[in-house]
Amino acid sequence: MSSPVAPMTLAGLQMPVRAELERVQKELRRIIEADFQLIREVNAHLLQMQGKLFRPTIMLLADQATGGPTPRAVTVAAVVELIHLATLVHDDSVDHSVLRRGMPTINALFSHQVSVIMGDYLYSRAVIELVRLDEFETLRVLSRVTNEMTVGEMRQLLAHDPLEFSEEQYDLLIRAKTASLLAGAAEVGALAAPPAERAALRRFGEALGMAFQIVDDLLDYTADAAALGKPSGSDLREHKVTLPLIYALPRMAESERRAVAGLLRNAEPADGQIADVIGAVARAGGLDYARERAQRIGQQADAELDFLPPSPARDALRASITYVLDRRS
Amino acid sequence: MSSPVAPMTLAGLQMPVRAELERVQKELRRIIEADFQLIREVNAHLLQMQGKLFRPTIMLLADQATGGPTPRAVTVAAVVELIHLATLVHDDSVDHSVLRRGMPTINALFSHQVSVIMGDYLYSRAVIELVRLDEFETLRVLSRVTNEMTVGEMRQLLAHDPLEFSEEQYDLLIRAKTASLLAGAAEVGALAAPPAERAALRRFGEALGMAFQIVDDLLDYTADAAALGKPSGSDLREHKVTLPLIYALPRMAESERRAVAGLLRNAEPADGQIADVIGAVARAGGLDYARERAQRIGQQADAELDFLPPSPARDALRASITYVLDRRS
Repeated sequence: MSSPVAPMTLAGLQMPVRAELERVQKELRRIIEADFQLIREVNAHLLQMQGKLFRPTIMLLADQATGGPTPRAVTVAAVVELIHLATLVHDDSVDHSVLRRGMPTINALFSHQVSVIMGDYLYSRAVIELVRLDEFETLRVLSRVTNEMTVGEMRQLLAHDPLEFSEEQYDLLIRAKTASLLAGAAEVGALAAPPAERAALRRFGEALGMAFQIVDDLLDYTADAAALGKPSGSDLREHKVTLPLIYALPRMAESERRAVAGLLRNAEPADGQIADVIGAVARAGGLDYARERAQRIGQQADAELDFLPPSPARDALRASITYVLDRRS
Repeated sequence: MSSPVAPMTLAGLQMPVRAELERVQKELRRIIEADFQLIREVNAHLLQMQGKLFRPTIMLLADQATGGPTPRAVTVAAVVELIHLATLVHDDSVDHSVLRRGMPTINALFSHQVSVIMGDYLYSRAVIELVRLDEFETLRVLSRVTNEMTVGEMRQLLAHDPLEFSEEQYDLLIRAKTASLLAGAAEVGALAAPPAERAALRRFGEALGMAFQIVDDLLDYTADAAALGKPSGSDLREHKVTLPLIYALPRMAESERRAVAGLLRNAEPADGQIADVIGAVARAGGLDYARERAQRIGQQADAELDFLPPSPARDALRASITYVLDRRS
């Protein structure tokens, strides 16, 4: 990276916006509030299973790095997280996922029906809130992002045939599915900034999001699943084709390629089958390649930050790149 | 009704806005356009299975009855229909419906996954389009409507226990599920009108929508399903409790009430069981009561139109009440 930074924890890079992040939690709670009992129950569960507010963090840091804190920032950051939540609820329903962050998903705990309806509930609340605040430019950015994410989800549905799925298509997929919301989060933090800074922050967010997703996909090959002491390989189990496999496949021995084809034909692949394919992907350089690509994209993200004036918030945005690249789980 | 009108066909009441309705079709096609092949395929199917543009008709008539046609009206009418479409796609997915208007649903023809994603795609396109047109007041109205509709869908999930489901709750359900979008359609047609006219049209749309849904629920008890030559009773089959049953239940003989309880316990009730309950509901006055309530609400809708200056469009809005009340299928 052009200006190397020391590895940092998420809590570390959240330092400049800690007070705001606490208010984001409260705002989120207020925005999704409901009279209707079933919705209250789902909301309570959603707030419990909430993540680490990575997207609001990026939004708030972008706001501070471009002349903030602005008074609108906390609520807009809450809306960014709300859109993320709405997307997760529908994604889990689409994927029939049972667990997220170690807790039962809405579709598992309530029903498929409830999760479809709740995703719509949450997203329409996000729109209502932005209209209420006259945040039309934010709405312009985030409605495009939301639409792009649906296209990303469609691409994901078709990403199960490695012979049909190229690195170019993988890039389109992760750009739409993951990078678009981080790009939007960074951009809406910078709406009051000069156009060059706003555009740089959008590109920063996009690169950060792509690196984030590549590392995520890589961790599926390398990270020890807590209980198992071996890689989870859950993407392979679900026949999701990601960058390590895309790179490795044409570089594998014929017998290894047959093993991949066998796994993808098998509705419930055995652990041994998954371990064999992970080994073959590693030998063909798929893991190294994905790691290097994430690093390169991280460097692009870093370079975009040179467009901003120096500030503690800009330092924290730089640190967020290292955080994303060094993630071990 | 205070000022009786001759029964009219939908084509008849669409007369004043025929040219606009043709442009609505084209606008809708433009707004949902996609590069992505799978989305194009779903869009093509959606446009084929499209309905009779009742909501855009009401919106365009409201626009004309309050000083229009305004240049924005056609596109806003297309967005109203688009929101309706997005809702249908998710409703069919939630209900696991296989057919709509005699054609396979998106979830049946493609998959559950595709229908969840497509609903999100369509709704976010509607928001993008309204932001693009600077239609913020329209967005304010329609985002609230969309949120209300999700609450209506939640109520629907719980509307399967007639002992827990009162007429008051039925009203809340149909107001949220059906009346809110017609209220919104009428209101966004009147954004340039004096506040009293705008409010009257919103109340008109709400009453029209409630009458519409009561008649719909009544038809499920009375209309011959084309092929069968007997009432479809599909709501009873799916254990959906609607107004005729709510009214009739406390007025039934004990043996009839037991028959209702038996039907609601039976996951796949027999045709005879359904016919018996329909008979009991009719004897207890449930059908007459629902018919009279729809008529009364139709009169309320009619009275609201007195707030508008006379015009052919206002006449057509009056005719839409008769159309809704006299529907036979």
